[in-house]
Amino acid sequence: MTSEELVLGIDFGGTKVALGLARRDGTLLATRRLDTDAAAGAEQVVTRALAGARSLVSDAYAHLGSVGVVSPGIVLPDRILLAPNVPGWERLHLKELVAAEFPDLPIAVGTDAKAAALAEWKWGTLAGADPAVFLSLGTGIAAAVLVGGRLLTGANGAAGEIGYNLLAPPDTDGFASGAAPLEEAVGGRGLGSRASALLGRPVTAGELFALARENTQAKELVTAALDELSMHVANLAIAFDPQRVAVGGGLVRSADVLLPALRDRLAAAVPFPPELVPARFDQDASLLGAVALAL
Amino acid sequence: MTSEELVLGIDFGGTKVALGLARRDGTLLATRRLDTDAAAGAEQVVTRALAGARSLVSDAYAHLGSVGVVSPGIVLPDRILLAPNVPGWERLHLKELVAAEFPDLPIAVGTDAKAAALAEWKWGTLAGADPAVFLSLGTGIAAAVLVGGRLLTGANGAAGEIGYNLLAPPDTDGFASGAAPLEEAVGGRGLGSRASALLGRPVTAGELFALARENTQAKELVTAALDELSMHVANLAIAFDPQRVAVGGGLVRSADVLLPALRDRLAAAVPFPPELVPARFDQDASLLGAVALAL
Repeated sequence: MTSEELVLGIDFGGTKVALGLARRDGTLLATRRLDTDAAAGAEQVVTRALAGARSLVSDAYAHLGSVGVVSPGIVLPDRILLAPNVPGWERLHLKELVAAEFPDLPIAVGTDAKAAALAEWKWGTLAGADPAVFLSLGTGIAAAVLVGGRLLTGANGAAGEIGYNLLAPPDTDGFASGAAPLEEAVGGRGLGSRASALLGRPVTAGELFALARENTQAKELVTAALDELSMHVANLAIAFDPQRVAVGGGLVRSADVLLPALRDRLAAAVPFPPELVPARFDQDASLLGAVALAL
Repeated sequence: MTSEELVLGIDFGGTKVALGLARRDGTLLATRRLDTDAAAGAEQVVTRALAGARSLVSDAYAHLGSVGVVSPGIVLPDRILLAPNVPGWERLHLKELVAAEFPDLPIAVGTDAKAAALAEWKWGTLAGADPAVFLSLGTGIAAAVLVGGRLLTGANGAAGEIGYNLLAPPDTDGFASGAAPLEEAVGGRGLGSRASALLGRPVTAGELFALARENTQAKELVTAALDELSMHVANLAIAFDPQRVAVGGGLVRSADVLLPALRDRLAAAVPFPPELVPARFDQDASLLGAVALAL
């Protein structure tokens, strides 16, 4: 690549798709967002995203050197594992579809949270940390760990998929039963639906955190979720003994409540409590991760 | 080193010290065991162990090429962290004491569970596994993980010290309060003392597992402990996505009950359930780990 060359990043999320044209140093030159419209299925969102990406890069096409694509789950050539949120997503040939739109360009695909960890390590708040842990706390709940600057993928690419963590000793309903216990308990969707049921009207996880300042019921729900989440984060930190943990994902918008709760529990439980910092890139972490992956 | 050279391993445990003279391929030529006699403090056991080691290697001294020493905790030059079971142990200058007994020989020191993982990876049931997890389930509870054949130490040498894991969402008593919640709940000492209280007479963890075949109270205690332990092992496997998990330590003597409980929970909860196998070396895993560390 010459220094002129640009990178296209595509981040397929459960509710939004982000497209970005970036320099090799991670500077985003242009971005675009689309709704995933998960209910309408997997193919339509890929088609719309690729059309949007093509239009985003149109003037710069000659300078495009590579494409990075991230998604929840484990992206294999003929399917995507552990990504049940968009109907049909698990049967996609994602890399092939992108390659058809961008022939002759190298295409890298990967898991969103792991790619985001890489972006935070290259350009964000995980720079220089070893081990470095990225927590993605949003619709989905996942972690990614870098040791010596290299992502731990695990034997099957599934390392860090802590959304599947069991919550209590007698629990036997886990992944094999179609459950993702920790994600259902503290992920944005689960929190939102329990808050809506409790308060009798549609409430998002973000609204729940805001309501918890004055509403007792909302506060109890938030406290219980933070207790659960912070126990799992503490145990994760005990397992990896990281130097620093960066928190990204939608729940970080409630950082004023979230970060102190996590920090207190790390201090109470972990022999060497890691630094806990908000991720640098907020919404763009996975998008920049797609760019990082393509480099 | 020439192929003739031998290695001395010393494994300081909470109840026993094991000494071994080994070939470089991990074959033990001679071994000796001493009681730790923890209540009498740290210095006496080191003195006795070094005298025993000196006598064990006496005829072979000329062939001795290196010494490996392992202990629970993190062995630093002037202290040992996370090893509260023997009074005074945390203030030992362990490497210096060993060096005084074996001048002119290279001395390697390390954490027992991590060294045992290395031995299982070199010569035992973790050979070829990536990632490979070793679970040490005995008086102490710890894990050690190898990725690409390299031990994950963490930022402070404390990776895998899952004995400190919190058990329930509201728990705030952890390491900072002097607690090791998971170890107290399912480690040999905690199990033994709860069994003794329940049954009104001194009972070890091993006896408890045997009693559980006929005694309802004992069975309930064992079931609760296995439920707790297996949840933590499942969550650990979710975090690392290992190819294989080997179980060592004293509780493995109850493998007929322990392994199926762990295996069932891994199958229920982990997206890609790892193989679960008993460690090859049983009591000698940490001793051979000391040897592996010295190579």
